Amino acid sequence: MAASMKNRLLIFKLRRLQVSNITRQIPKNRSVSTIPRAIVYDTYGDPKSVLRLQETEIPSVGDEEVKIQMMAAPINPADLNTIQGQYPFKPAMPAIGGFEGVGRIEEVGRQVKSLKPGDLVIPSINGLGTWRNQLVCKSAEVMTFPSGTPLLFACTIRVNMCTAYRMLKDFEELQPGDCVIQNAANSGAGQSVIQIAAARGIKTVNIVRDRPDFEDLSSYLQNLGATVVTTEAQLRQSEKILMQNLPKPKLALNAVGGKSCFTLLKHLQPTGTMVTYGGMSRQPVMVPTSSLIFSDVKVRGYWMSRWHEQNKDSEEAKCMINELCNWAKDEKVRPPKHKLHPIQDFKLAVENAMTDFQTEKQILRLDD
Amino acid sequence: MAASMKNRLLIFKLRRLQVSNITRQIPKNRSVSTIPRAIVYDTYGDPKSVLRLQETEIPSVGDEEVKIQMMAAPINPADLNTIQGQYPFKPAMPAIGGFEGVGRIEEVGRQVKSLKPGDLVIPSINGLGTWRNQLVCKSAEVMTFPSGTPLLFACTIRVNMCTAYRMLKDFEELQPGDCVIQNAANSGAGQSVIQIAAARGIKTVNIVRDRPDFEDLSSYLQNLGATVVTTEAQLRQSEKILMQNLPKPKLALNAVGGKSCFTLLKHLQPTGTMVTYGGMSRQPVMVPTSSLIFSDVKVRGYWMSRWHEQNKDSEEAKCMINELCNWAKDEKVRPPKHKLHPIQDFKLAVENAMTDFQTEKQILRLDD
Repeated sequence: MAASMKNRLLIFKLRRLQVSNITRQIPKNRSVSTIPRAIVYDTYGDPKSVLRLQETEIPSVGDEEVKIQMMAAPINPADLNTIQGQYPFKPAMPAIGGFEGVGRIEEVGRQVKSLKPGDLVIPSINGLGTWRNQLVCKSAEVMTFPSGTPLLFACTIRVNMCTAYRMLKDFEELQPGDCVIQNAANSGAGQSVIQIAAARGIKTVNIVRDRPDFEDLSSYLQNLGATVVTTEAQLRQSEKILMQNLPKPKLALNAVGGKSCFTLLKHLQPTGTMVTYGGMSRQPVMVPTSSLIFSDVKVRGYWMSRWHEQNKDSEEAKCMINELCNWAKDEKVRPPKHKLHPIQDFKLAVENAMTDFQTEKQILRLDD
Repeated sequence: MAASMKNRLLIFKLRRLQVSNITRQIPKNRSVSTIPRAIVYDTYGDPKSVLRLQETEIPSVGDEEVKIQMMAAPINPADLNTIQGQYPFKPAMPAIGGFEGVGRIEEVGRQVKSLKPGDLVIPSINGLGTWRNQLVCKSAEVMTFPSGTPLLFACTIRVNMCTAYRMLKDFEELQPGDCVIQNAANSGAGQSVIQIAAARGIKTVNIVRDRPDFEDLSSYLQNLGATVVTTEAQLRQSEKILMQNLPKPKLALNAVGGKSCFTLLKHLQPTGTMVTYGGMSRQPVMVPTSSLIFSDVKVRGYWMSRWHEQNKDSEEAKCMINELCNWAKDEKVRPPKHKLHPIQDFKLAVENAMTDFQTEKQILRLDD
């Protein structure tokens, strides 16, 4: 399938986000906790302005459908970029925010064999629209995960954890003792990289921006399993000390772009790979010509949504979720540092998520 | 083998360039044409200043060696960059210039079975030092090529033609009717790309810098087989007209860097590859973050010297030389547009080679 076709398909799937049955009045005769509500938007723009909490109507459950009580959903950069209209996903309007989360099955259609009421589920498609308390969808659009998995871990597994898992698996064959370098190391995906790498015995060199609370952040990331935590300036000044006893990184993970790539590439092993999954500096990815020609580095990009779309229902997808959840149960990886918000406080949650130097994941509680 | 090891190996091999037996006096009792002479340098620097023509002594031919009368050798950008000290190859001093050329076997050692006097040969290693009229080397360091190949084609096959051949083969599987986009399309490698692509039925979109003689250059490149010849400005203005009836390029070839990459990537098919083999703008390769993440383009580099080193004596190397020479015999690909210079005029040849907007290959005649 041509990639443009794939993109069209992704966009098509996302139309599910459309809320055709939003009503503007919350009936007075229903208790607040059972009123179906969603965080919706009618137009692309600043998430702080365009989002609103709105009552929705929930259709009856079809033969192959399930009804879900959503429990929690995080606010990820990709959610915000979609609302800003800066993402390739262009949901039809009005749309419901949110790409991931965790919920509990309340009711299943007559043909549904794989799920039963009480099962905990996460999305298995990209465009579920998780920022709502109740939803009805096809049973194939959600999946279970190993019991005993912390719910806040399951709630944030599909974006950051899966991104980190795949980037550490799909580009370079990493063995215990190998090394990975990354920038934006305190981002959600960055923290996931640190933990998954540590669980696999892989060392990490983690670059963060200089900040007043650098020492606290450094301790926190080392506590997650980071081998080295540094700023770009420190790395330039104390390269030999910081990198001593470490092999040259085989893999570099870039969520910043611009000249930060020079730092990653300076340390990357010849023939290694730099994978870009974000562009926080809003600068293009910059690569010295000599790195490409003489060091034969490979420069790639990674987009979790595409992987999910292309590997939906695959054994590989199930293996990944199982392995991550089992690591979480063994406390080898943890739920993100987070702040919980009741659904009606979504504006504060969004505002926090858009604040610079943010290390906490903002998570909406949807079952209050 | 680790890449750094490979680089060390390449550098080691290059020590063969060293001229330990240079003498400063040309004996008066020998005719000029038989005096062994070489274009040598003692120090890195501006090729126009540091190169000099010097008599050398030729050792007797060992059991596994051959003596070669060199006939012609081109001046390539990589030769000049090596002399400038800007190449990873760091030959020991004094060194002889030149990476490729063509010569005739004059004498073979007692153990040499694969070659005989009269055979025409090209280098099969990177560091032969071809800017000399006579040389003695191991028989394995040169190789024959199909008889009937134009000598000026053989003389320039190893750098530009092989670079173009491999870049069109090793990164994307191209079928007849597919499309490739390139900048610096009038460079030696660029002209080779046009011809090999045309020989394989592949369409090419060729970007050149704006210049007074654009129409002449465009006709010349179209005559070589170019599908479209354009400047960046023309391509921006008349994109739909220029690209009509063409599929989106699967492969982009970059010898410029900087923002020129944006143009290549704008047209590259999603999941396609951009290969960098030069950096004429002296700017880093710049890649929009979205091209990497959402279009999943792959950014790679190519270095012919590494391929030659890693594939020396391989069947693949022989196949490539044979296929190229057979295309040349069939006039599907041609020797480069060129200017011949006797060895003593090497300074003019070097000066021409360093002139901007140069389309002609400067070639030294070594058998005058």
